[in-house]
Amino acid sequence: MDFDQQLQLRFALIESSKVLQSLHLYHGAKWSSEALNGLCPLTNEQKVAVFQQSQQRPPFSFLPQHSQEEFLEFTEQDKLLMAASYFSFKEFDRCAHVLKDCTSPRGLFLKLYALYLSGEKTKYDETGGVLGQQDGKVQNQKLTEISKELENYGKQSTRGQLEDPFLLFLNGLVAAKLKDNAAAQECFYKSLTIYPFNWSCWSELIANLASFGEALNVLNKFSKNAKFMNNRLYHVMLRFFKITISQEFFQQFNELYEDLSYLLDIFPKFSYLKIQKALISYNALDYVAAENIFDDVLENDPLRLDDMDTYSNILYVME
Amino acid sequence: MDFDQQLQLRFALIESSKVLQSLHLYHGAKWSSEALNGLCPLTNEQKVAVFQQSQQRPPFSFLPQHSQEEFLEFTEQDKLLMAASYFSFKEFDRCAHVLKDCTSPRGLFLKLYALYLSGEKTKYDETGGVLGQQDGKVQNQKLTEISKELENYGKQSTRGQLEDPFLLFLNGLVAAKLKDNAAAQECFYKSLTIYPFNWSCWSELIANLASFGEALNVLNKFSKNAKFMNNRLYHVMLRFFKITISQEFFQQFNELYEDLSYLLDIFPKFSYLKIQKALISYNALDYVAAENIFDDVLENDPLRLDDMDTYSNILYVME
Repeated sequence: MDFDQQLQLRFALIESSKVLQSLHLYHGAKWSSEALNGLCPLTNEQKVAVFQQSQQRPPFSFLPQHSQEEFLEFTEQDKLLMAASYFSFKEFDRCAHVLKDCTSPRGLFLKLYALYLSGEKTKYDETGGVLGQQDGKVQNQKLTEISKELENYGKQSTRGQLEDPFLLFLNGLVAAKLKDNAAAQECFYKSLTIYPFNWSCWSELIANLASFGEALNVLNKFSKNAKFMNNRLYHVMLRFFKITISQEFFQQFNELYEDLSYLLDIFPKFSYLKIQKALISYNALDYVAAENIFDDVLENDPLRLDDMDTYSNILYVME
Repeated sequence: MDFDQQLQLRFALIESSKVLQSLHLYHGAKWSSEALNGLCPLTNEQKVAVFQQSQQRPPFSFLPQHSQEEFLEFTEQDKLLMAASYFSFKEFDRCAHVLKDCTSPRGLFLKLYALYLSGEKTKYDETGGVLGQQDGKVQNQKLTEISKELENYGKQSTRGQLEDPFLLFLNGLVAAKLKDNAAAQECFYKSLTIYPFNWSCWSELIANLASFGEALNVLNKFSKNAKFMNNRLYHVMLRFFKITISQEFFQQFNELYEDLSYLLDIFPKFSYLKIQKALISYNALDYVAAENIFDDVLENDPLRLDDMDTYSNILYVME
């Protein structure tokens, strides 16, 4: 990957960190910002050049742009700001109430996502939490309402279907909770072909796969998609998907180590990637290699909690 | 206040909602965004005009601008994004760790504010929470460290003292916790003269006032400050302060009702302002007037929780 493409990747990850954070998709924002910090650092000269360039013109955006929606979102800006502050206080119903008349994709996403989280919170309270007595027996009560509103919104759109990547993602989330796995996968797939830099969406898609066979089908579909074939940056995201399903399903592709080293060349300091490598070693019962990688990750990120259960298990097994 | 000034006020509140939200000063962000939504709404024609204008050039900023810091912040951008995502997960120590080498005002603020909250969290856990057995006996263990780092940073600045409004605000927070009320007030005062659209700072200043006499001294100091005398927008913020201290200390200025109606003209739909009026009526034992205002506030904002304890008390007294 040449320097220009690496720079594009950098901008894509900066943009996605910001947009996912602003949509309260915190897992995705964390992944993007860790990926960004995992890239080869720029030299001081490069930093100056990139800074000067960014002062002159805004960087290329990977988000779909619609000039009509810009004005709509502008008119809803005041409400969006108020909703964001209610969201910070976890006042989800109040957030949804403020946005009740919003019709921009962003306004609708935040309204329905707040409703979704409000439903999850009520469910959690009623069931006594994860592992509580009622866990798994109670449904999020807002799902049908959200699903209907998304359906209507899609019907009223120019092409008669949802086109915003984040609304598609939310639709997938809701479908998955309603146990309609095929619909969920279709939504996640569509969302990612429009905007692939949303790790929240990739990881929900992965969580939704029932078998390695299903994973291979999805991988196949992406691989044949023109966008993923032609755009190097899209392709990078697909490789992350490929490595992750390989790790999650304990399956080794022939090209697994090639993929890993390709990505590690681009992201030499990305903990997520290192940990995938460690988990692959762990699954292959190579505890020494796995432990070495975990040690390296913790040296740079000593307060990391993610995946530390596995690390602790490795240390226990090796004793 | 003419239309141009109202528009400036609108931009100032949009900017402050965004900047306070990005600094995780959620109370201030909520206040600013509610104030923004409390302004007289723009007509559709005005919206189009303002939108077109905003496309051509960015609106005037009330934040202090330093071109040197812009490049510094640009070089720290990747870390700032990662820190923001850790902050969302309340991983405060990890957030501070990521920012350990940052030297931009923004980087330093986020690092030290994360440390401050980490200290508050530890204190909370150790004392069994608010009203726990140890409440009030244990100190936030990070205060001295934060205070020293702010002092050093000030000394190394061009003018030998802190000049960033948010670092000054944080310094005030720390001084208040260390029971140095005079220093705290001085910091809050300085912060507000640089950037008055930070309600988190005004309310900490108010919480720090021991008597109405002290409040009047501070009010006097602001009133004689050239910025607050000459800038109509600064003056608006000072009137909010004036009304709030009047309400909090059960004191009526001669011009109290004049101030209230001046602000209500500008912010006819601002709940905070309406509730100040209700509380003033409540303090004057005019329960009927107070209840009417609360009814009106709840009609527009049925899920509001703030100040509902007082409303509930009014309903109880009136029964």
